[in-house]
Amino acid sequence: MSDLAPPRPPLAGEADPPAARLAALDRGLDALGCAALAVVATSGRDPDLAPWVGGADVGRSVLVLPRGESPWLVYPSPMERAEAAATRLNLVLPESLGLPELARAGAGEAEELAVKLRGALAAAGVGPGRVAVTGLAPAGAAHAACRALEAEGYRFVPGHGLGRWLRKAKTADELSEIRRAAAGAAAAMRRVAGCLAAAVPGRSERDNTGCGSAGAELSLGGAPLTAGRLRAEAAIELAARGLGLPAGSIVAAGDQGSVPHSRGADGRVIRAGESLIVDLFPHGALWADCTRTLCAGPPPPALAAAHEAVCAAQAAAAAAAAPGLRAWDLQLVACRVLGERGIPTPISDPDTTRGYVHNLGHGVGYELHEHPSFRKESAEEGVLGVGDVLTLEPGVYEPGEGWGVRVEDLYWLGPDGLERLTELPRELDPRAY
Amino acid sequence: MSDLAPPRPPLAGEADPPAARLAALDRGLDALGCAALAVVATSGRDPDLAPWVGGADVGRSVLVLPRGESPWLVYPSPMERAEAAATRLNLVLPESLGLPELARAGAGEAEELAVKLRGALAAAGVGPGRVAVTGLAPAGAAHAACRALEAEGYRFVPGHGLGRWLRKAKTADELSEIRRAAAGAAAAMRRVAGCLAAAVPGRSERDNTGCGSAGAELSLGGAPLTAGRLRAEAAIELAARGLGLPAGSIVAAGDQGSVPHSRGADGRVIRAGESLIVDLFPHGALWADCTRTLCAGPPPPALAAAHEAVCAAQAAAAAAAAPGLRAWDLQLVACRVLGERGIPTPISDPDTTRGYVHNLGHGVGYELHEHPSFRKESAEEGVLGVGDVLTLEPGVYEPGEGWGVRVEDLYWLGPDGLERLTELPRELDPRAY
Repeated sequence: MSDLAPPRPPLAGEADPPAARLAALDRGLDALGCAALAVVATSGRDPDLAPWVGGADVGRSVLVLPRGESPWLVYPSPMERAEAAATRLNLVLPESLGLPELARAGAGEAEELAVKLRGALAAAGVGPGRVAVTGLAPAGAAHAACRALEAEGYRFVPGHGLGRWLRKAKTADELSEIRRAAAGAAAAMRRVAGCLAAAVPGRSERDNTGCGSAGAELSLGGAPLTAGRLRAEAAIELAARGLGLPAGSIVAAGDQGSVPHSRGADGRVIRAGESLIVDLFPHGALWADCTRTLCAGPPPPALAAAHEAVCAAQAAAAAAAAPGLRAWDLQLVACRVLGERGIPTPISDPDTTRGYVHNLGHGVGYELHEHPSFRKESAEEGVLGVGDVLTLEPGVYEPGEGWGVRVEDLYWLGPDGLERLTELPRELDPRAY
Repeated sequence: MSDLAPPRPPLAGEADPPAARLAALDRGLDALGCAALAVVATSGRDPDLAPWVGGADVGRSVLVLPRGESPWLVYPSPMERAEAAATRLNLVLPESLGLPELARAGAGEAEELAVKLRGALAAAGVGPGRVAVTGLAPAGAAHAACRALEAEGYRFVPGHGLGRWLRKAKTADELSEIRRAAAGAAAAMRRVAGCLAAAVPGRSERDNTGCGSAGAELSLGGAPLTAGRLRAEAAIELAARGLGLPAGSIVAAGDQGSVPHSRGADGRVIRAGESLIVDLFPHGALWADCTRTLCAGPPPPALAAAHEAVCAAQAAAAAAAAPGLRAWDLQLVACRVLGERGIPTPISDPDTTRGYVHNLGHGVGYELHEHPSFRKESAEEGVLGVGDVLTLEPGVYEPGEGWGVRVEDLYWLGPDGLERLTELPRELDPRAY
């Protein structure tokens, strides 16, 4: 990927597919030396297919996006004809490729896929030559189909970077769906905070004397307040809004939250005075992502100080964000703020396992993690552009003391800077929510 | 796929990975003339990888299952080391393949995948020759990686049929997780039925005079009772149990349920005396699937008669099911029962668009639709075996009259026949639930 300017910003009411994406496609294909991008998918929810079909239930389809021409879709059977028609794409009828007969004859996935790919390329006027390929597909079938067409003069190269590039800047419809998911994340977080705020100390275990030392176990409605209960409360709030929550969402108390990737055990009872990292990533057609660290009762001073530092780092990075800047530059801003407070960071100490031990954020869209990239080594995909949706999520972790803190918000980048999509307080105190 | 006997039935407490699956793997590889099956996946939830890693969060991993030897797993980075260790598989450390350096150097997915695939094959002692490939992977990267290794003497053939075959018979742990999802489906269905039973007629639109003609719109708690409300109630019940419900689950009233694949519009208000098809397919690590047709108030006679016929067809098919029979044979049983009542079926009228217009069921497991196959053209994958989990879901549709009925249960096949996993009444009357 090189020589790619960011796609034009999204416009409400824009034609579908957006002209900006088709223009970006042409530039991307030029950079790859390819005549087309082929998307090989098992459903309309495939992250590379969804932007072109609106998430319609088109099944195992192939979309070919030729340079300078409009896209063509092959859908698998006449059963999907209504969904396919609703995409307003040029359609190759499965009957015209003999797909129903192939299915009845028990053809394998590789043979069917080769027929779809060949048919879509032919319909789009893409003859033998270089074609980029993306989409999630059955690996063996995809390889066999590509190899069969390579025997006919095609040459297939990976097109995943281009696929992600095309969906970096969000359209108005996509942003609207992300807003819906972000509003759900905020409501779910408020519900979790409400449970914590309403909880009461149960049997007292030991004094609350400092970081990582635990206070009394909390109970709610007569039952121990567990991470599993809070996870379920968040899922219920999201389900009522038609949003899903992966099982991997994080509700990690005390020591369980002292390493960034621990999910937190369902059976863990929450205690007064300990850190509780709640990282929720709900999705509708697109994703959202939001983290708060909560603490029922007065927080230990070190936790409060780390929380203040994390909020300051996030605020500084958010204020610095602007189109044309690299996302990595925001990590440098966050590391400076944390470093000034004596907290180890990947810049001051690349091998640190305490303090700030990860990157600042990631793009969010049809995938939970997509462009813009925050990696130091990123190229154009790491340059912020108008229409990007991204998280900023600094954290501080003290595994030796058994606590962690992370604060994450989701933002949309406009011409004048970031707009926050996760409207929530950031306080440790759950009563603030 | 040929010459494959069904894997041995699952045994509780069996060693992991189950010896029966490894034996079936060896027979499958013999049939394909391959030395190994390679699973190329983007997460531990990949249906072909999950059975071997217990759904652990191992990211973009490659598993190689050699004939006659134990499997080897390559995981992507040191961050996944704890999850990888928990799989109890032989592990290839990412450091030993230079994967961290490749990532830092910004290597593409294709290059990383080639390194993982080559490393896993080498660790498993699989030299150049034929290798079957399965798993869902980035299509372009999978093709490029396979092509690179083919230049070194490997030859990759599609292994998706073998992958599905290996997970046809469920282990005790898998069955237990399916039972959990099925219990959730039943609870969600009871909640939906409870809402319908508690609903009251709102403003009356017209008389309830027959099939498809609608009675009064229903309301609950002062608000119109919509399909969207019922879908949310089902999702909430499942969320509280840690189960997800795809947005595509079906709540289709009256005419919206008169074609099998309509999801039903969220805004549709349910009416007294009309058919309401509720098809819920929740999932944890594995899936379940259950459908009931409900009717608030006295059902029109034609709907009641069709419901009786559908239940009779399901009961006859369930009673006939036995290891060694073909799933297609059960479709013949269901068609006979329905045909005797004068209902068109795919046997009596292959082009019918009213009556019974689809197949009888499908296997369920790590995918919502997997083996056993109910297709007439199926080979070994269509032969019922002990340990299979499958649905039986006959239906009758009258698009011209604006109603439909379908009843679906989930079953486990034991040595003596089917055990139902979705414990629920089948009545049209929601008060029966």
